[in-house]
Amino acid sequence: MKFTKMHGCGNDYIYVNGFREQVAASEKPELARRLSDRHFGIGSDGLIFINPSSEADFEMEMYNADGSRGEMCGNGIRCVAKYVYDKGLTDSEHISVVSAGKVKYLDLTVEKDPEHPKERGTVTKVRVNMGSPILDPKLVPVKAEGEQAVNEPITVDGREYHMTCVSMGNPHAVIFTKGVAELNLEQMGPLFEHHDRFPARTNTEFVEILDRKTCFMRVWERGSGETLACGTGCCAVAVACVLNHLTGNVVTVKLPGGELLIEWDREENVVYMTGPAVTVFEGEVPEGTRGGENV
Amino acid sequence: MKFTKMHGCGNDYIYVNGFREQVAASEKPELARRLSDRHFGIGSDGLIFINPSSEADFEMEMYNADGSRGEMCGNGIRCVAKYVYDKGLTDSEHISVVSAGKVKYLDLTVEKDPEHPKERGTVTKVRVNMGSPILDPKLVPVKAEGEQAVNEPITVDGREYHMTCVSMGNPHAVIFTKGVAELNLEQMGPLFEHHDRFPARTNTEFVEILDRKTCFMRVWERGSGETLACGTGCCAVAVACVLNHLTGNVVTVKLPGGELLIEWDREENVVYMTGPAVTVFEGEVPEGTRGGENV
Repeated sequence: MKFTKMHGCGNDYIYVNGFREQVAASEKPELARRLSDRHFGIGSDGLIFINPSSEADFEMEMYNADGSRGEMCGNGIRCVAKYVYDKGLTDSEHISVVSAGKVKYLDLTVEKDPEHPKERGTVTKVRVNMGSPILDPKLVPVKAEGEQAVNEPITVDGREYHMTCVSMGNPHAVIFTKGVAELNLEQMGPLFEHHDRFPARTNTEFVEILDRKTCFMRVWERGSGETLACGTGCCAVAVACVLNHLTGNVVTVKLPGGELLIEWDREENVVYMTGPAVTVFEGEVPEGTRGGENV
Repeated sequence: MKFTKMHGCGNDYIYVNGFREQVAASEKPELARRLSDRHFGIGSDGLIFINPSSEADFEMEMYNADGSRGEMCGNGIRCVAKYVYDKGLTDSEHISVVSAGKVKYLDLTVEKDPEHPKERGTVTKVRVNMGSPILDPKLVPVKAEGEQAVNEPITVDGREYHMTCVSMGNPHAVIFTKGVAELNLEQMGPLFEHHDRFPARTNTEFVEILDRKTCFMRVWERGSGETLACGTGCCAVAVACVLNHLTGNVVTVKLPGGELLIEWDREENVVYMTGPAVTVFEGEVPEGTRGGENV
């Protein structure tokens, strides 16, 4: 089976062309687990099949490293866009991708190699329409009074913090603080994640404002712990920056794994995320083994 | 640049054919660092070039994931043997490989696919002559009286343990104990590694005897922490088993990453290690980028 290893801000998946490679649905969870293993397999955060679709130009069929189904991943979907353009599955710079029943619209930035201007270019960046932020506390969900939870006090481990709560389809609590690089997220993250004010648990972003257009964040993801990047988290952070009057509507969010440009279009009430997509290598696991067995 | 990802008991390296791929020596440490990164690169414990040699059949030029030079790796050298045979660089089942100036002799087990008996077989196991164990405390080195440190008391964090100290070119302290699977190695490992009785620090093996031919071990490697497998550690464990009259001269050592068969030939005073070598996948990083850049 042929595959391509790609990453967006260090969030790395194995991408497989589902038009060409035939894998039975029942085998996919186990295949994702085996191939994602970082010592015995290829090593990744998960496995993504790029399939034909009747609802959109392409389907993104995503499996996490533990074999469970993934619903959406902002870093992953940018790589899907790079894959389909770079490999000639589309010639359009505006595509739609469906993942777990939801259609996303993507704008591709294509650059040509200046030394080979007649050759087809490759995708360097992708802009994704991430939809509308949800601020109603009941829908985030977070236990809070009023129409929005903005700069809302919360007591964690005996200390008072201020959070702004935003759902981008999944819940986020954004905390503005100093010294983000030095925070002990292993200790703090679970205390927020399992706090009784978050009925569905929460992702938590710890954010430092650098200037009116830039911030730095680290994220504790619900169920995953600290990660190098979180696309929906960056969107929630930009929305929280604006609601707290800390930045304008366009924010560069720096992360341990890279950076993402977030724009909150207030008229349409839509958040756009622009970021890199990188092809690391092309690979092939031997037929019959699918990688990792002793053959 | 083409490469092959292989592992021995979960100890995984990127293998490159140095006969064909030309990489300047000055670039290799940085290349090893970049390609070994598990999110932005290929992901591995390091990078191994297989080169021509005047001292042996092949040279193994090894770099750790941090770009430093590696001297020898029992799990890595088995994969070198599988690589050169499976890819037709040799037809011999007995080869020599030099690494950091030291020549090792290897015996290859070749198996044919029963469905294709006329095709060339592939290597499934490799036996490596790991040399003679060193027991003199001054040479291990460990601070101890007498000619050998066998079942020698040592006080760590206020508790008394018994250790048997063996060098296989690098120092090992072997501790026989119960409940190895439950031990907190993150806490105990560093206390042994930096104990003042080990002038060059030490690798520490925590070992449980299962029967007269089998044991289970976990290893805390000097400078690396807990690892899935350690070839020299398994050799030291087998020698310690024999010296403490716990097993015969042939011991299967089970590890979190697999198992290795160790034979201590008392007449020749040589330790042989036999274990698996696995090809996981074939890959290619784009020319000019060598993986991981945003292109």
